[in-house]
Amino acid sequence: MLKEYDCWLQKRKIGLTIKIPDAVYVQGDSEIITQAAKEYVNGIQRLANVTPKIETKKTANSSLPKAWLGLISDMEKQALFSNLAAGAEGFVIKIADNNIYIAGKDDAGLLYAVFRFLSLLACGKIKDNFEISETPASSLRIINHWDNLDGTIERGYAGNSLFFKNEKIVYDSQRIEDYARLLASIGINRISLNNVNVRNRAKLLITEVYLEQLAELAAIFRRFAIRLFISVNFASPRDPGVLKTADPLDADVIKWWKECASVVYKYIPDLAGFIVKADSEGESGPFQYDRTHAHGANMLASAVKPYGGEIIWRCFVYNCQQDWRDKKADRAKAAYENFKPLDGKFDDNVILQIKFGPYDFQVREPVSPLFGALKKTRHIMELQITQEYTGHQIDLCYLPFMWEDIMNFDTGEKSIKDLIKGFAAVVNTGLDNNWTGHTLAQANLYGYGRIIWNPSLDAKEIAHEWCALSFGQNETAEKISSILLKSYPAYEKYTSPFGICFMVTPGLHYGPNIEGYEYSRWGTYHRANVKEIGIDRNETGFVNQYAKKNADIFSDPKKCPQNLLLFFHRLPYDFIMKNGETLLQNIYDTHFEGYDEVLEMLEQWKRLKKNLDNAVYESVLSRFERQLLNAREWRDQINTYFFRKTGIGDSKGRLIYD
Amino acid sequence: MLKEYDCWLQKRKIGLTIKIPDAVYVQGDSEIITQAAKEYVNGIQRLANVTPKIETKKTANSSLPKAWLGLISDMEKQALFSNLAAGAEGFVIKIADNNIYIAGKDDAGLLYAVFRFLSLLACGKIKDNFEISETPASSLRIINHWDNLDGTIERGYAGNSLFFKNEKIVYDSQRIEDYARLLASIGINRISLNNVNVRNRAKLLITEVYLEQLAELAAIFRRFAIRLFISVNFASPRDPGVLKTADPLDADVIKWWKECASVVYKYIPDLAGFIVKADSEGESGPFQYDRTHAHGANMLASAVKPYGGEIIWRCFVYNCQQDWRDKKADRAKAAYENFKPLDGKFDDNVILQIKFGPYDFQVREPVSPLFGALKKTRHIMELQITQEYTGHQIDLCYLPFMWEDIMNFDTGEKSIKDLIKGFAAVVNTGLDNNWTGHTLAQANLYGYGRIIWNPSLDAKEIAHEWCALSFGQNETAEKISSILLKSYPAYEKYTSPFGICFMVTPGLHYGPNIEGYEYSRWGTYHRANVKEIGIDRNETGFVNQYAKKNADIFSDPKKCPQNLLLFFHRLPYDFIMKNGETLLQNIYDTHFEGYDEVLEMLEQWKRLKKNLDNAVYESVLSRFERQLLNAREWRDQINTYFFRKTGIGDSKGRLIYD
Repeated sequence: MLKEYDCWLQKRKIGLTIKIPDAVYVQGDSEIITQAAKEYVNGIQRLANVTPKIETKKTANSSLPKAWLGLISDMEKQALFSNLAAGAEGFVIKIADNNIYIAGKDDAGLLYAVFRFLSLLACGKIKDNFEISETPASSLRIINHWDNLDGTIERGYAGNSLFFKNEKIVYDSQRIEDYARLLASIGINRISLNNVNVRNRAKLLITEVYLEQLAELAAIFRRFAIRLFISVNFASPRDPGVLKTADPLDADVIKWWKECASVVYKYIPDLAGFIVKADSEGESGPFQYDRTHAHGANMLASAVKPYGGEIIWRCFVYNCQQDWRDKKADRAKAAYENFKPLDGKFDDNVILQIKFGPYDFQVREPVSPLFGALKKTRHIMELQITQEYTGHQIDLCYLPFMWEDIMNFDTGEKSIKDLIKGFAAVVNTGLDNNWTGHTLAQANLYGYGRIIWNPSLDAKEIAHEWCALSFGQNETAEKISSILLKSYPAYEKYTSPFGICFMVTPGLHYGPNIEGYEYSRWGTYHRANVKEIGIDRNETGFVNQYAKKNADIFSDPKKCPQNLLLFFHRLPYDFIMKNGETLLQNIYDTHFEGYDEVLEMLEQWKRLKKNLDNAVYESVLSRFERQLLNAREWRDQINTYFFRKTGIGDSKGRLIYD
Repeated sequence: MLKEYDCWLQKRKIGLTIKIPDAVYVQGDSEIITQAAKEYVNGIQRLANVTPKIETKKTANSSLPKAWLGLISDMEKQALFSNLAAGAEGFVIKIADNNIYIAGKDDAGLLYAVFRFLSLLACGKIKDNFEISETPASSLRIINHWDNLDGTIERGYAGNSLFFKNEKIVYDSQRIEDYARLLASIGINRISLNNVNVRNRAKLLITEVYLEQLAELAAIFRRFAIRLFISVNFASPRDPGVLKTADPLDADVIKWWKECASVVYKYIPDLAGFIVKADSEGESGPFQYDRTHAHGANMLASAVKPYGGEIIWRCFVYNCQQDWRDKKADRAKAAYENFKPLDGKFDDNVILQIKFGPYDFQVREPVSPLFGALKKTRHIMELQITQEYTGHQIDLCYLPFMWEDIMNFDTGEKSIKDLIKGFAAVVNTGLDNNWTGHTLAQANLYGYGRIIWNPSLDAKEIAHEWCALSFGQNETAEKISSILLKSYPAYEKYTSPFGICFMVTPGLHYGPNIEGYEYSRWGTYHRANVKEIGIDRNETGFVNQYAKKNADIFSDPKKCPQNLLLFFHRLPYDFIMKNGETLLQNIYDTHFEGYDEVLEMLEQWKRLKKNLDNAVYESVLSRFERQLLNAREWRDQINTYFFRKTGIGDSKGRLIYD
């Protein structure tokens, strides 16, 4: 039975596919290696209900088979796996003559190796002569929390913050350790704890008001090879500082940040650096002082450089005071327009963090044209695990399904998975006992870690893996896996059609509001009229931000992927789609289907009742029931909206309210 | 120059039209009579800059002309005005032989007489041999505050509460006295201080936690002949009480309320009674216990009856969880459906408080069909002075313009002004120095008092009177009066067209959101499609709630008043209106006109600059500027919405964004 709190690290006696040696020989005594050894012992206890004895050089009885844990370079028998290459944070695992070799390229690599070994063991993949080597595809594997110091979480749907409460740092250290373990087990190596919107008391996190406690948190994560970032407010020299300016070229401002860094690094010497949301949605930034984002980022970068720190600079910069009457402006163009001209102007410890799409974490957007366009600037991709626009962890929406598409997107020269060496994602965790509100949303956190570690994994493999680890290797897990894989297409079908985006309730971002953003300042319009809908992005010039190969595809409604058709084109309702039906009929069809698919998932879930822990069953069931109501609202409001707009009903005669 | 704080009781030396006697002879020494005498002396000081000497029986020198203040029945020279009739709270005023006779039918009447005398004097209406008698048309002239104990005001746009702050009763007693004076000067005789949504600590207002302080407030208002109501929560026996039920037929509940009343009346012996919002928008009520509203109201009525108290029971009861798909349900029918069947079932100290229209204080609604339908139940009408749907005291919207229409509405047997003997209104005042946020919104508070005192007054007379009192008898006042009179039609033109209602931003209720309520649970839909818009209220049966005479008018789009056309009918956009143009063209026309009229008011205001106190000028100017932006949004969003919906442009070729 699933214990929700344990996520994919369940205690469950498995059918062993190898003999587990009685002893584990641990070479090295760093904090991380020591943790890796503990994780091995605890993991074996979880899965095999035996407790391997830890041996070191002094205590070892070398004649018996063992599990050997250490760095590759330290291992006596490294010749055994000299055929297996591993890079930074990578590892090798090999089974030979009843010995288990688990060896890291470095400390972190060893920790990841232990977790991978345990996961493979739980999935029945470890056999005699098994061998594997892995190196993470990305060096930055970041989790961003949007936690506020009052304990609330911006776009959080799984309870309050694990770290903050009532303007204080308040945490349960056991829980933080458990959280760090979960993250390390999927390869996360960086974390930011506070919201990128750094307001009120959160501005003091970089001061001695909070640093001592923040350092205590950092120490817990450090044992799991996870380094902290801190989100900072660009205007900090003015507040909490007392300077009159935050101009990045002002000498006092430069000095202020250098002093700030020296204090911060005194407390947290391995701090990964700062994250900055500047000139975005009302936040302060270099534009206020007629400076460029390069000026702003480089100034901060020079402050943290002496300590090996880095600046993550978010590219979510756009005009959020747009006039809906203005058809020339196109918010989708903003990131490229703001950052492409600065390519090459950033210091080498600046990293641009770019949202995967040109808008904002919609259920379907094209990959941002800024990927592939930046040639001389370090940059990473930002994803969203928390389900802001994808169902608030009430609706099931298995996100690796979308991430797989993103990884495979060809920017023109390279696919994202070959091009991008770092990812950050807004996380979906909070104080709820199951961490993620919806228990099945644990798969999104798991999937994020897995796919950025190895972007060649597909959504299906990840679903199988997560289900097997969570529910055991059995038919129930297979069935849950098939539900997960249905969930994303279903959500996409019953919400905004064909990439049109932003038909969601303003502010809340859950449930339909078809014209909710239509006359707003946010720059996200569909301009549906009696004949047609969508923005012609040839006309706005957005299409030309892509490499020619992609521009050619996106610019032509006949070639454009159907799920992005209304992102790129303004089309009449009678436009004929690939299936020979009109756009309007396709809207009706997908919305009826999307609802039916939720109903089907709900029914499938009900059939699993007897195989599931009752609390898990009930809590997921109640969410499916709420999802069904939501899907019904979406289906009916979208269908009614277009029916009222066109006067044309469903060709199949299904009920559309008038 | 206007002193905003003083409202219509300005200190301004006027050109006197009579000689003011040196002395005022005061007969009677009740608290209210004493206050009336003070008001006379202060008023003469304000307007004539002299201080009449107060004389009583003992001190009088009877040979000189005087102002005579007292009850009609006490006056030595009552034969002088025996031709003038006055009922309860009424008065006579007569000028004869340089004597001024100001006589009340009762104490309150005398106070009102003094204020009317001063007002008439300020307007230059008092001459030799002047005589007048007045009796208020309504016996209940109520102000409802929707003030919360945290100091916020629900739908308040003029600063925080005058009475509450941080869950405490906190007030400036001088300010409360000034407020009571303002209210008494326009004839208000009842006030409730706390929000009808009685939540959290406000439930304790009927307990000794707050009663001592509440009694102190009551004492201030009492001097001005104003009695307090308290808004109570129907579920109070459960919370703050500890009973398991609030069932109105439960013996313990009945006892609980009787004990509650005995405590409350110990502190405030002349408390007017309780106000109750039950079974409304989530509030508790008798429906929860399968009881009727008569059961609920009568039970409370019997608790306050021994003390002469009354229960005001609000009729704002409707299903706020409506399904937009359901075309049979019609929220407009709710008040009638809920209360008409109970006619005659209420005790004689129960008063039903019915919102003027079937919806909720929209800029244009028909008068509720419940008026005229109730034959055997005391009932009063609820108006809204605070500009919830009428511009948030940012936009100028002179409400007596609408109230005049309401007063003249013929229910079938009688007009509202002849039928309704009590009014309540949600007030627009708060801690802002000018009381009402928008200085010109003082006219709405003034106008409410005046029109319910004398519903034969028209909006124009009231505007002239208010402007003369506020700005003096001069051309500036005339011009401001003409601006006031333009403001309501302008607001109506640029917002929801022809009585369609609820095209406003949900929740906030300021600014346009044309489909904002369209798929909501609130029951207020327009169901616009490609061809037509509106609800056919013949079909829902709403029209038949009216007397036949009115049903005949409202049911026929050719007879229905144009400003209510879309309240009652579903019509095609090409429906021909009285001016020979289509409905659609009329929508465009009114929206272009409404915006232009705001522009005109703004320009007119600018031309008054040199004649106005600069602070007043600037503060009103900045509101006109904000109003212009709002009017532009309304104009453009409404026009664009219908243009997109129909594909048909403006016949006059004005710019509509597509």
